[in-house]
Formats: sequence, C-alpha cells, structure tokens
Amino acid sequence: MSESIEETCRRIGPADRAVLEAAQARQLSLTKPPGSLGRLEEIGNRLAAICGLPPAVPMAKRLYVAAADHGVTAEGVSAYPREVTYQMVYNFLAGGAAVNVLARHARIDVQVVDAGVDHAFPPDAPLLHRKIVRGTANFVYGPAMTRGQAEQSVLAGIDLARAARQDGIGLLGIGEMGIGNTTAASAITAALTGCPVQEATGRGTGLDAAGLARKAAVIERALAVNRPDRGDPLDVLARVGGAEIGVMMGVALGAAAERLPVVADGFISTAAAALAVACCPPVRDYLFLAHRSEEPGHAALAGFIGQTPILDLGMRLGEGTGAALAMPVIEAAGRLLAEMATFEGARVSGKAR
Amino acid sequence: MSESIEETCRRIGPADRAVLEAAQARQLSLTKPPGSLGRLEEIGNRLAAICGLPPAVPMAKRLYVAAADHGVTAEGVSAYPREVTYQMVYNFLAGGAAVNVLARHARIDVQVVDAGVDHAFPPDAPLLHRKIVRGTANFVYGPAMTRGQAEQSVLAGIDLARAARQDGIGLLGIGEMGIGNTTAASAITAALTGCPVQEATGRGTGLDAAGLARKAAVIERALAVNRPDRGDPLDVLARVGGAEIGVMMGVALGAAAERLPVVADGFISTAAAALAVACCPPVRDYLFLAHRSEEPGHAALAGFIGQTPILDLGMRLGEGTGAALAMPVIEAAGRLLAEMATFEGARVSGKAR
Repeated sequence: MSESIEETCRRIGPADRAVLEAAQARQLSLTKPPGSLGRLEEIGNRLAAICGLPPAVPMAKRLYVAAADHGVTAEGVSAYPREVTYQMVYNFLAGGAAVNVLARHARIDVQVVDAGVDHAFPPDAPLLHRKIVRGTANFVYGPAMTRGQAEQSVLAGIDLARAARQDGIGLLGIGEMGIGNTTAASAITAALTGCPVQEATGRGTGLDAAGLARKAAVIERALAVNRPDRGDPLDVLARVGGAEIGVMMGVALGAAAERLPVVADGFISTAAAALAVACCPPVRDYLFLAHRSEEPGHAALAGFIGQTPILDLGMRLGEGTGAALAMPVIEAAGRLLAEMATFEGARVSGKAR
Repeated sequence: MSESIEETCRRIGPADRAVLEAAQARQLSLTKPPGSLGRLEEIGNRLAAICGLPPAVPMAKRLYVAAADHGVTAEGVSAYPREVTYQMVYNFLAGGAAVNVLARHARIDVQVVDAGVDHAFPPDAPLLHRKIVRGTANFVYGPAMTRGQAEQSVLAGIDLARAARQDGIGLLGIGEMGIGNTTAASAITAALTGCPVQEATGRGTGLDAAGLARKAAVIERALAVNRPDRGDPLDVLARVGGAEIGVMMGVALGAAAERLPVVADGFISTAAAALAVACCPPVRDYLFLAHRSEEPGHAALAGFIGQTPILDLGMRLGEGTGAALAMPVIEAAGRLLAEMATFEGARVSGKAR
C-alpha cells in the first residue's frame, strides 16, 4: 500500500461517541414517543456522530458513478454485451438513465467517473476522466490489474472525496456501471468474507440457471488462480476487482478521512465499501448501506461492514439508484434531529406513566 | 349508509388494467435489465393504472393529518395523557412535529383536520375545522359515535379528497393524531379481519406489559359490548372507531372516486383505509401502504387490503410520518416510468442472450 493511502487511513478516526450519545439524549427530548421514529433515530444519531449535532441541513448531496470494463466478460458471465458499459455512460451524460431520474428527483449532483471504460470518450465529454485501464484483464488467467493500477484507482477516489468536501458537499454516494462487475464483486465477497462462492454469486443483470453456474465456476477458477490475500485489501482489489471498484473504495476512504457520510448503493458499491473497511476499520462509522440488494452476496458484505441496509425494494440495478433513494431518507433523519420541537419548547406533556 | 357515501362508492371503478399492462410493457423498453428496479416498477405501473401513462410528474403532494380524541383513554390505554392530542395539533400548526419536518423535506403540503379533538381551537387557527365530536364516547360502554356522526366524518373526508383534486394535487396521503387511537385501530382490525385481539394489539406510544394486557382486555370488552357488524364498515367505525379514522376513511374513498393515488401512513391510517376497502373493494387499487408499522395488527390490515408496505424502518409514530417518507418514493417510481430513456432512444444494446 502506498504511503498516500496509508496517510489517508491515518487521518481516519472513529465517529464521535460523545456526540452520538448527545444525539441519543436529544432524541428523548423531541415531541415523539421514545424510539418511535425507529431507524430514522439511529441514522440521525450516526449522522451527528459523523458531522456534528445538530447535523447541518439541508445537505448538498453528490453521487459519484464510477464506470469501468472487465476482462472477465470474455467468459460469458453477463447477460448484456460489454459495449453496454460505454453506451450507458453516454446515457448517464444525457440524463436518461434510472440514476439520473432518481437524482434529479432528490436534487443530487451526479458526477460520472470514467475509471476504466474500454472506450475513448471525447476529451470534452462532461465526465471525470480518470481512466486507469481500458478494461481490466480477464482475472481467470491472472490479476485484473497491477497493484499500481489498483492503487491509482483508490487514490483517484480519495481525491474525489476531497473535491466533494471542497465543493461543500454534506452527503456523498457511490454507484457504478460496468458489465461484468457483479462477477468481480462476488469474487471480492468470497475473498474478503470467506463466504462460499455459491452464496456470493447471483444472476447479475439477468443470467439464466446455466449462466449462473458458469459465473460461479469462473469465480472459483479466478480465486484459485489469483489466491487474493484477504489481509491485503489492495491485493484483493488488484487481483479480482475492477477500476470502478477501486475508485469507489477510495471515495469511501476519502469520505471517512474528510468526516463525510457516504452511502454505498448496492452489491458492487458495498463490495468497494467493504474493501475500504478492510483497509481501515473505522471507515464503517461513516458508511450507510442504501438498500438490500437482490444479489445474494450483499448480506455477507453488510455483515462484514456491520451496517444494516436502509431500504428493501427488491432492486438490483446499481448505477447508484438505491443510493439516490436512500440519501433523502438519511438527510430526513438529520433534519428531524435538527428541526423537531422539544416537549418543553412545544409545551407538550410527557409520558403519563 | 347514506346515499352520499353510496354515491361516492358508485363512482369508484377498478384501476385501468389495460394501462397497467401498457406500463409493464413500457418498463421492458427502458434502459435497465427487466425487473431490476424491483418494487419501483410495480409502484410505477400501479400509478399509471390510476392516473395515466406516463404518470404526470412531478406531483403536487398533500397530506391530511386528521386529529381526534377518544373516550376510551379513560381506561388507561395510552402511555400519554389525553391533552397531548390538542397540544400536538398546536405543534403541527407551528411546524415542529416530525411530520412537519418530513413534509417540508419532501415538499408535501400538510393540512391539519380537527375531526374531533376535545379542545376549542380558535376559529382563526390554520386548520380545517371539521369537528364532529369533542372526543368520542368510551366504547367500552357503548358505541364511540352515533351512526350519523360516523357518516358525517366519512363525508368530511370525501369532501377533502374532492378539494385536493380541485387544488391540482396528484398524490394524497393520510395521517393522524389521537391519544388512544391505536386502541380503536386494533378493535377495528379485530372486527374487520377476524384477527384475534391479542395479535391486533400493540404497545402504541409505549405501554409496558401490564398496560398492553389492560389494553387488550379493554378491546375484548368493547367488542363484546358493541358487537360491530363486519359486513357494515360504517357500523364498525361508529362503534369502535373514531372521528379522525372516519375522516381518513372518507379521504380514501374520495381519492378513489377522484382517481387519485392515496398513501396510508401507519397502523391507524391503514385501519381507516381497510374500512374504505370494506366499503368498496376497488379502493384497494388506489391505495399505497407507506411502511410496515411496528404495531402487530398492521400486517392483518395489509393482508385485508391486499397491498404490501413500501418502507420498513421500524417506525410507530403515526402523524403521517411514514407517508411523508413514502410519497417521494412513489413519485420517483412515476418519474422513472415517465422520464427514463429507452434502449432504442439511447442506443443501448439489449440482452445478449
């Protein structure tokens, strides 16, 4: 690991326990029965522990959508052809993808990052040009990336989190696009959590049963060939990850270093977040999991990170769509803590017994 | 049942099956794997069947928060004193309650309805004055309301739905405030669904075990004394319901008559919605259940209505707080259907196999 990633990790401390407790105490003074706002209370308290009590609201919100291609698509692991990655990037730039609609709805700034798409975008295309590879190598035969490339992708993400802080962003999200990247995420899940490949592997964008079996076999081979070192998250990223996963891992690390809350979208984003937590455990304090993905490996990642998804809407699209739905809920939790009246202030009687 | 409620019911037809199918077909043309938006697709399709394809977005959103008092509070069924009902109405009017914060966040117009609060609000207080009773009678000894009062409360709600349509509202929500009203809602649940009282009764705003047992016993007595007729929803409302529940039932009926989607908040609102469905089964097509309430009777009501809650955040506050969180999700589902690019339009390749 380069000094620079290490440096970032050294800046990361746990969220503020004293502020968390102060937020918990404040919840009891607000005009509602104790605990009646359920997870909104827990989310609000966590926000306070990250960014202060009361949380500064409303929050400027940004979603980084990182895109990259994957050499492993040569193994027939996806229901969609590889060119869909760059085609969807153009769709993002035109504002027509699901994530664009949901982000407009929630007033979230979407920034598209070319982390490693196998396509030459025009230099003036309104995306963040951070191309590290033109698609990874097929990790069935060896590492997806060199360690240097993996490191470069993480550093790019750390830099994006710093830029978000400088731009006054209060809540960050990470999402992705990359045909083949559920295969990488499942491999990371198995490598990092020890979850069996069968349980970590799902149908992605819509494989049939034969496709699913092929995908699991590909992942088994990739893990046998690469033998990623779970004690070394950058090794896992380089061997069976992807460039967009590295960028998202970097955003998660950088967000924690900047004391910014960061929302992981679905399965692939959560795999990136889990790599960041493996790199630096206190990162988990800054992470919110947007929703329960339909991908079966997601549960193992959520357990590894130690956070519970907020929404459960049967989604499995990625792009940041789940994050775009969860970010306003997180912000709402912050606003409740910041804006609700107290029993005393509103002259409302407390519990009778 | 008065001719006027019957007239309203006669105007209610099922949502448009052909439009539902057209929406399902359109989902397949949008740039995402089929089904990958999970429940957002189902919600968007239902919206289209109610109000047209594509749904008109963005939607003006309104939440009616109906308040009333309950004579059964004399039995010690609530953790909070009765005066909290009117105190919270003032809190709503001052904008300090949880529902106000969440509604501001989601740009929802909140209108507070005095359906039967035991307090004389000043005539110029900015609420909708629809007081039918100054608190219901204690239904342990006989009906909570006369049939005429129950009918009047429903008609007031129908009128509010009509007003919403005239004001250009596209999405309605119902929420409530009323110390003691989980007791009424549990009695309605048992009466309407046949669910045992034990399973329909929960801790409300925070009863202890002894309080919970007392509450269940009170409900058993109320049902034995009143013997509500489950084939006659207005009888159930009059005997063991409440004025705010009647108003919400009316809003649900009126919304269906106006072909407006309507979101039931939590346990009590869903009890009102279930009464509307019992009155006129096609109402279920216009109903969305905001969230899974922590109150145990909610599941029986959801089953009776035949809809699945959208969110599950461990909430049990009422007021319309769950509706205020779910309404933007429902609107988002409509926007996806209306605004997403198609594979053809965005030149994105389809499934490879």
